[in-house]
Amino acid sequence: MTNANSINLNGAITPWLANEGPENDIVVSSRIRLARNISGFPFFMKATAQDKKAIRGLVFQAAKELFPKDSYYFIDLDKAETTDRLYLLERQLVSRELTEAEGARSCLIDSKERFCVMVNEEDHLRIHGSISGFRPLEIWNTINETDDLLESKLPFVFHEKLGYLTACPTNVGTGLRVSVMLHLPGLVITKEIDKMFRALQKCGLTVRGLYGEGSQALGDFYQISNQTTLGRMEEELIQKVSDFIPQIIEYERRARTYLSEDKQAATQDRCARALGILKNARTIGSVETLHHLSNIRLGIHLGILDEPDIAVVNNLLINSQPAHLQKYLQKDSEQSEELSSQERDIERAKFLRKTLET
Amino acid sequence: MTNANSINLNGAITPWLANEGPENDIVVSSRIRLARNISGFPFFMKATAQDKKAIRGLVFQAAKELFPKDSYYFIDLDKAETTDRLYLLERQLVSRELTEAEGARSCLIDSKERFCVMVNEEDHLRIHGSISGFRPLEIWNTINETDDLLESKLPFVFHEKLGYLTACPTNVGTGLRVSVMLHLPGLVITKEIDKMFRALQKCGLTVRGLYGEGSQALGDFYQISNQTTLGRMEEELIQKVSDFIPQIIEYERRARTYLSEDKQAATQDRCARALGILKNARTIGSVETLHHLSNIRLGIHLGILDEPDIAVVNNLLINSQPAHLQKYLQKDSEQSEELSSQERDIERAKFLRKTLET
Repeated sequence: MTNANSINLNGAITPWLANEGPENDIVVSSRIRLARNISGFPFFMKATAQDKKAIRGLVFQAAKELFPKDSYYFIDLDKAETTDRLYLLERQLVSRELTEAEGARSCLIDSKERFCVMVNEEDHLRIHGSISGFRPLEIWNTINETDDLLESKLPFVFHEKLGYLTACPTNVGTGLRVSVMLHLPGLVITKEIDKMFRALQKCGLTVRGLYGEGSQALGDFYQISNQTTLGRMEEELIQKVSDFIPQIIEYERRARTYLSEDKQAATQDRCARALGILKNARTIGSVETLHHLSNIRLGIHLGILDEPDIAVVNNLLINSQPAHLQKYLQKDSEQSEELSSQERDIERAKFLRKTLET
Repeated sequence: MTNANSINLNGAITPWLANEGPENDIVVSSRIRLARNISGFPFFMKATAQDKKAIRGLVFQAAKELFPKDSYYFIDLDKAETTDRLYLLERQLVSRELTEAEGARSCLIDSKERFCVMVNEEDHLRIHGSISGFRPLEIWNTINETDDLLESKLPFVFHEKLGYLTACPTNVGTGLRVSVMLHLPGLVITKEIDKMFRALQKCGLTVRGLYGEGSQALGDFYQISNQTTLGRMEEELIQKVSDFIPQIIEYERRARTYLSEDKQAATQDRCARALGILKNARTIGSVETLHHLSNIRLGIHLGILDEPDIAVVNNLLINSQPAHLQKYLQKDSEQSEELSSQERDIERAKFLRKTLET
């Protein structure tokens, strides 16, 4: 299948929002990404339009040989509509770079979204996947398997001493990036977040927002990941990042305890108002929605809010985003027209009220 | 009765919030105040402590002779507790000046709050009263009657040419001030309010906030009144102020129509969120409460909100104020301790939720 419109994921929760796995009140998800390039082609920056098409062709063919017919999607982003590209971005299946790049570019998505391969992003292949909770080794196993399968069909550029070669030197070696997405409203509200981030950066870790590189922190969600990959084994890299997480979790828990005990009224107020606003707004943007959902998520985990269920919050986190909402409405009304931003804000408010009232 | 604590008005709506009378979606209330001084005593600024006591004694005696025993309260503000003084201020029975002044000062309040007489405010007597809706002549009749009754017992200072003499020259003549309290959220939201006020000031009218002289506009409530009283008959003064009101009402209605038709989503959102916040907040100040109540009031009159009833909004307008809330809680729990501002904000949120949920 090569049409994002036909992706049968509409309305479903992505695996990284399944709210399973250890520490999932704070660790939203664990993510692994591998960078790979195919021998015989220049790196992305120097690749011609022909090269890119040829690379895509090779990956397409490999997927066809490796995976059962209905177990994956192969989507050409250069042919996809804007809404569909954004839809994939919102699900964190593709990067902003891939949605905005020029020329032949695609993604191969496991139909259960356990893994995804971006084709012609910064590297020829970016094999990645996320899983909910703090369990990076589990998702590493999935990605490692996928990598092995693909390598059985595609000749990846590998240097005996350096390891896998990549477009950007920071990825040379394993080509691995491990990211842990954390929900840190406690540290944000108590204004300890910047201090925490400066400390992590000194330790060689990168802190990014919800949508990766360069993206701003939204709804108190942050991704912590390694900066470089050279000279280390995969498991070692995963361990290095993982080692910092319990400490961050501990600080966040302390902040939450402080908020629920020493700032009880203000914290109850913050969470209850967030729910009140989402249940009553008649027009609302996606960034404001995310902000309130973050406070509702905090309220649920602090036992301040009896409802909604965390699954409802996760549903809204993913489905209140612009492209998800657009696709939901198109599906619902069988209309294909793109909504204006104002219309979408009204529809988002309707969707929120409807979902939260049930 | 001389103790504000015993005032049996707790929780009841003041007559000026009864939501009756013409144009009451915009004209909250009409108010008349007369300034009177007793012969043989210096004006307030030069009056000694003895003078003030004597004046109070005379009014006390007159009231006793004029009104049935249980039909009025006579409260000495210099002996009242802070909460009780603020309670009377919030009901607009006394002015901030009277609550803060030195020496013997009192108020005589009709038990149905149809009229009130402040003793030893800027003048020896300030006879005033409010009624809901746009009907200044109706409340004028009440105040005029009360004035006649008091004058039958007290020798008011009267100058053949100038009329009634008063402490401040702006009140000389009739000593009458007519005020109309308007709820003007439409003009505030559309930012036309300042232009309107400048025009009114050029016409010799004064614009003040909810609590009179020097008080800031709160919750989009404004009082329009005459600046001077000299050289005109009472009815003429009342007519002069009244003549401007239909025009203001017309502008406010136009602004409301614009908001509900041309800014439909934003206006629905504003009103619905206001209700959502008051139904969900766990701590909230009185000024923020007033702001949301103003938007809810607008929403009801625009047909945007089906609930609450306007009577509930009026109940909250008066009873969510600090001293009213304090007295309500004391009554409820038989506790007499003064709450801190933080405690009161939590109790206010509880009171709002309880009242709006039923």
